[in-house]
Amino acid sequence: MNLHVVILAAGQGTRMRSSLPKVLHPVAGKPMLGHVIDCARALSPERIHVVIGHGAEQVQQQLDAADLNWVMQHEQLGTGHAVAQALPDTAGAEQILVLYGDVPLLQVATLEHLSRQAGAQALGLLTVNMQDPTGYGRIVRDAAERVMAIVEQKDASPEQLLINEGNTGIMALPGGRAAAWLGSLSNQNAQGEYYLTDVVALAVAEAVPVEVAQPTSEQEVMGANNRVQLAVLEREYQARQALRLMTAGVTLADPARVDVRGELVVGRDISVDINVVFEGKVSIADNVIIEANCVIRDSVIAAGSHIKAFSHLEQAQVGEDCEVGPYARLRPGTCLARGAKIGNFVETKKANIGEGSKVNHLSYIGDAEVGSNVNIGAGTITCNYDGVNKHKTRIEDAAFIGTNSALVAPVTVGARSTTAAGSTITMDVPADSLAVSRARQRNISGWKRPQKK
Amino acid sequence: MNLHVVILAAGQGTRMRSSLPKVLHPVAGKPMLGHVIDCARALSPERIHVVIGHGAEQVQQQLDAADLNWVMQHEQLGTGHAVAQALPDTAGAEQILVLYGDVPLLQVATLEHLSRQAGAQALGLLTVNMQDPTGYGRIVRDAAERVMAIVEQKDASPEQLLINEGNTGIMALPGGRAAAWLGSLSNQNAQGEYYLTDVVALAVAEAVPVEVAQPTSEQEVMGANNRVQLAVLEREYQARQALRLMTAGVTLADPARVDVRGELVVGRDISVDINVVFEGKVSIADNVIIEANCVIRDSVIAAGSHIKAFSHLEQAQVGEDCEVGPYARLRPGTCLARGAKIGNFVETKKANIGEGSKVNHLSYIGDAEVGSNVNIGAGTITCNYDGVNKHKTRIEDAAFIGTNSALVAPVTVGARSTTAAGSTITMDVPADSLAVSRARQRNISGWKRPQKK
Amino acid sequence: MNLHVVILAAGQGTRMRSSLPKVLHPVAGKPMLGHVIDCARALSPERIHVVIGHGAEQVQQQLDAADLNWVMQHEQLGTGHAVAQALPDTAGAEQILVLYGDVPLLQVATLEHLSRQAGAQALGLLTVNMQDPTGYGRIVRDAAERVMAIVEQKDASPEQLLINEGNTGIMALPGGRAAAWLGSLSNQNAQGEYYLTDVVALAVAEAVPVEVAQPTSEQEVMGANNRVQLAVLEREYQARQALRLMTAGVTLADPARVDVRGELVVGRDISVDINVVFEGKVSIADNVIIEANCVIRDSVIAAGSHIKAFSHLEQAQVGEDCEVGPYARLRPGTCLARGAKIGNFVETKKANIGEGSKVNHLSYIGDAEVGSNVNIGAGTITCNYDGVNKHKTRIEDAAFIGTNSALVAPVTVGARSTTAAGSTITMDVPADSLAVSRARQRNISGWKRPQKK
Repeated sequence: MNLHVVILAAGQGTRMRSSLPKVLHPVAGKPMLGHVIDCARALSPERIHVVIGHGAEQVQQQLDAADLNWVMQHEQLGTGHAVAQALPDTAGAEQILVLYGDVPLLQVATLEHLSRQAGAQALGLLTVNMQDPTGYGRIVRDAAERVMAIVEQKDASPEQLLINEGNTGIMALPGGRAAAWLGSLSNQNAQGEYYLTDVVALAVAEAVPVEVAQPTSEQEVMGANNRVQLAVLEREYQARQALRLMTAGVTLADPARVDVRGELVVGRDISVDINVVFEGKVSIADNVIIEANCVIRDSVIAAGSHIKAFSHLEQAQVGEDCEVGPYARLRPGTCLARGAKIGNFVETKKANIGEGSKVNHLSYIGDAEVGSNVNIGAGTITCNYDGVNKHKTRIEDAAFIGTNSALVAPVTVGARSTTAAGSTITMDVPADSLAVSRARQRNISGWKRPQKK
Repeated sequence: MNLHVVILAAGQGTRMRSSLPKVLHPVAGKPMLGHVIDCARALSPERIHVVIGHGAEQVQQQLDAADLNWVMQHEQLGTGHAVAQALPDTAGAEQILVLYGDVPLLQVATLEHLSRQAGAQALGLLTVNMQDPTGYGRIVRDAAERVMAIVEQKDASPEQLLINEGNTGIMALPGGRAAAWLGSLSNQNAQGEYYLTDVVALAVAEAVPVEVAQPTSEQEVMGANNRVQLAVLEREYQARQALRLMTAGVTLADPARVDVRGELVVGRDISVDINVVFEGKVSIADNVIIEANCVIRDSVIAAGSHIKAFSHLEQAQVGEDCEVGPYARLRPGTCLARGAKIGNFVETKKANIGEGSKVNHLSYIGDAEVGSNVNIGAGTITCNYDGVNKHKTRIEDAAFIGTNSALVAPVTVGARSTTAAGSTITMDVPADSLAVSRARQRNISGWKRPQKK
Repeated sequence: MNLHVVILAAGQGTRMRSSLPKVLHPVAGKPMLGHVIDCARALSPERIHVVIGHGAEQVQQQLDAADLNWVMQHEQLGTGHAVAQALPDTAGAEQILVLYGDVPLLQVATLEHLSRQAGAQALGLLTVNMQDPTGYGRIVRDAAERVMAIVEQKDASPEQLLINEGNTGIMALPGGRAAAWLGSLSNQNAQGEYYLTDVVALAVAEAVPVEVAQPTSEQEVMGANNRVQLAVLEREYQARQALRLMTAGVTLADPARVDVRGELVVGRDISVDINVVFEGKVSIADNVIIEANCVIRDSVIAAGSHIKAFSHLEQAQVGEDCEVGPYARLRPGTCLARGAKIGNFVETKKANIGEGSKVNHLSYIGDAEVGSNVNIGAGTITCNYDGVNKHKTRIEDAAFIGTNSALVAPVTVGARSTTAAGSTITMDVPADSLAVSRARQRNISGWKRPQKK
């Protein structure tokens, strides 16, 4: 079936109290509209049309992609009018699916069901049974359970107000009828707007069948008009992620205290303590332990590794059986080989740390190639920046860097060599050597401290 | 209207299991009684009388202020007796509003409504419709909905037990009647106490009208007798703060994981990630991003700044477009100019950091004046303390401090000057210079490490 | 009464999607089976029999103890069959209490009540009134409220489905009947299994009285078959811990954001901020303040101490009136005397820190004896490891360690001595001396930085 998707994303969202267009407000770190577009893509439609208006330029710029047709709605004259703007680009469509840029939790399976139910001939409606349908249009059915009309709250009779099946606004239009229906909508109503909902009456009048599908939960079709609702969507999204992780074999210390913003791929028997945040693309293999309060962004963690509390990883690769943290910060370009250890108050950046090597305390290792079985003492700093250019530090296998060392790059410490504590290493150190740069210690007896001023 | 407020704050609070008087237990970092006093102040009363007893001295000391009249209740003989202690100081009162030091969430608007309803002639009662009124006195009304009596739980008939309108104890007494009513209370009851509630019967008997007002929610009139209830109040208070922030245009990653203890002033389009704690007076301008797990106390953050995860700010001023953290600790007296950057494992204290200057890693900058466009290398320490006195470090514009430097104050590094990595700078460095304090490096080949003992 | 306990722990737990046997999955850091065993122990039974099967070796190895009799069930043929495997070892039992290794929240008082109700002659059943008993066997009673049968969901009549008293499976068998009953169970049912539940029908048939006890809540008898249920148990367990702490006199900023995994002994007037995790044996005395986001493991904190945000303690002893953190990491063997202070980005390990001594910033103090009133400057590192052996650093009373010092152990800094900032101390420093190890500073004027490449 030739399917076109039209996503309405032109609204201003005044109640967001924001200079950001409403549909760009993020859920789980991704604009709401991005979620809707991704959901639409999963249906493999002929084309996705996004109707924009308020903040059009910003919306288009942030989400532009080859498979999107941006349609400008210059005046916001209602949902029917909005869909009509896209019509010129939907030639050949057998079905036109209408989605909303601020309803981001909709599931692909729900839409597939709606689309299949409606096919090319019927009008498809996504309706939802609600605990409290106040404010929603009610779905009026006849004795045979056929949809007869959608009655708005203000027009509903007392009996109709008792109906708890509400209209979500999400709809599949038969391609052959869309143009005629949208063309015949009227704006003779209180708001002076062209309502997409009015096509239901047209379908019934023309005896076009109206097919209904429903989402798995009310939450799936919630929209966000303000930040309170946005937070509700965020929590609902995160609750789903937590469920998905637990089902996959991850132990969560508290499903209400984990945040997944992006794609998190997990193995089995992973343990995630409270208050961990995952962002971007993260992949975690079997038997990894992640302690409390970690932030992990765009990183890969291999099997058996242990990320201790308060660690912060970004674009880092952690090999098997590594220990990281607590209070370790792995910055972009950090790559730990098997069994490496990065300890507390340590920052790494563009650093390859070899197998079994350790940087346990209070160090900054940047632009560095560190071999295997290296021990880097507390307080070691690679001086990779001369104020103008960045240079590389190389520390070869089994070297031992004394505490409080400064390694002034470019510099190499050879295999099995040692640098003395407190040294500033400015020249290469050959293999199997000791490098010292230290002033002689003098003890001055009977020395008095300064007086209190 | 001449309004006096009497706050009852004499109770012991045994179930708190605490050596702190009950009314001093904090909600959102402020004693419960402090909340009640602030609420009372907002009514601009003639005078606020606080009736104290258990822990009187401690209570008075912690909250003393010019507008408070502390009244001692030497024996706790009931609420009526407590209010009576304040009577001698309420001469001229047209209305006496009775509040409770352990009911801290009461809203000003609710009290204004109660006060207005009652005026100077009627008795005003604050009642509340409760889901489960068990244990509360029930409000008995006649056919015309006039309040006839308050019936205590144990005295209530089966029909009366079905009433879900409960007595909060909060009351507005007509000034002209208060003395007579309180004087005629009896303690001939099971507890042997003088109950303030009994004035309702007196009013009805004297045909004084009884006017009722209600809070916006049951939570508003909850009290805390133990720490479980205290935690309920805390969460309710925080839920309100979260709602207020979101309504103002702040995105909260999780409204259940933000804590505001004090005054938080916010601009628009601020983003606050999970688990952030605000304490004291904090002001945050537009477009600020605050990442997860930050603690921010008595600080000002200007527009466009980005506070990264695990940062801790106290009495700090952050200029526009700054980057702070992760793991940055800004201590009192830190002032960052526009575009400054403070990175990981960095502590600052009494430090002015100039425009565009950077302290990116593992440093302690205290008692320092840092110019603009300065780069302070990793591991830099200002030695501001000689064991006796504190001294100042000055780093002028565009200076570059090499890594692992110790700057022994008082000392100045001149504009555009550089200090070599690993140097201890004890003397001033003129402008446009290089300062080095470093021992020559020696490489000793064929060196053997000590043997394992 | 001669009581034997049989714990069924042989199941595989496929839905856990784990290589860990189900009963070893932890709640609050302890295997579920460990909770059940501890509960059984509190009854002081003659013997505890644990029936194992899947992962038997791993289970036994992890929880082995002298008072446990491990019984192998080679094939999982049902609960009745499982209990039967233990029978040969229960000679002399007057009562056999049957528990489940995946039902960890059961309370001792509940079991005591069940055991007492049943005695040696009756069959004791633990039943529970459930909001939604779907899937559970229903307890069918006669007009006199005597238990007549347990009817499984699929066999229940419409009337029986309305019964909300469900079977927990937990049971007290009269010792004298157990063998006969278990021997006469049949596996002629849909699952082809021997069901323990069938003994109820046998008891009724033989006119053995069936006595019932109930837990205090539905949660007490919840089991975990997957990680979603495991998380529910974890949260229920933690909610109980929070309640216990608050009742004991601890103020929790958020009862939903505290985790206790082990034994936490508390004094009074302790304040615990959000997101604190306690693990292992922790003891906290009166008036201790613990700020947000701390992890505290196997440590003792004396009265009046203040643990600031982001601190991490493990096997540490904190004396009275100490200040720790923020961002302090106390590793095993840290012992702080009264009034000591450990500040930000400081790591201590096997270190005794004397009364009133301070390590305020960016230091690593390991294998150290620090006297009283010592001040250790920022950036101080004890070089305790020469790559092969660990050595000790001694810093005597009232010494002052200059910033950015490296103390190369073994080394002693004498009482009241000072080390100059930036020094590497390799030789002992006598008392009342100044030790300096520093190269002369040279200022090179007109120096140009390298060019941008």
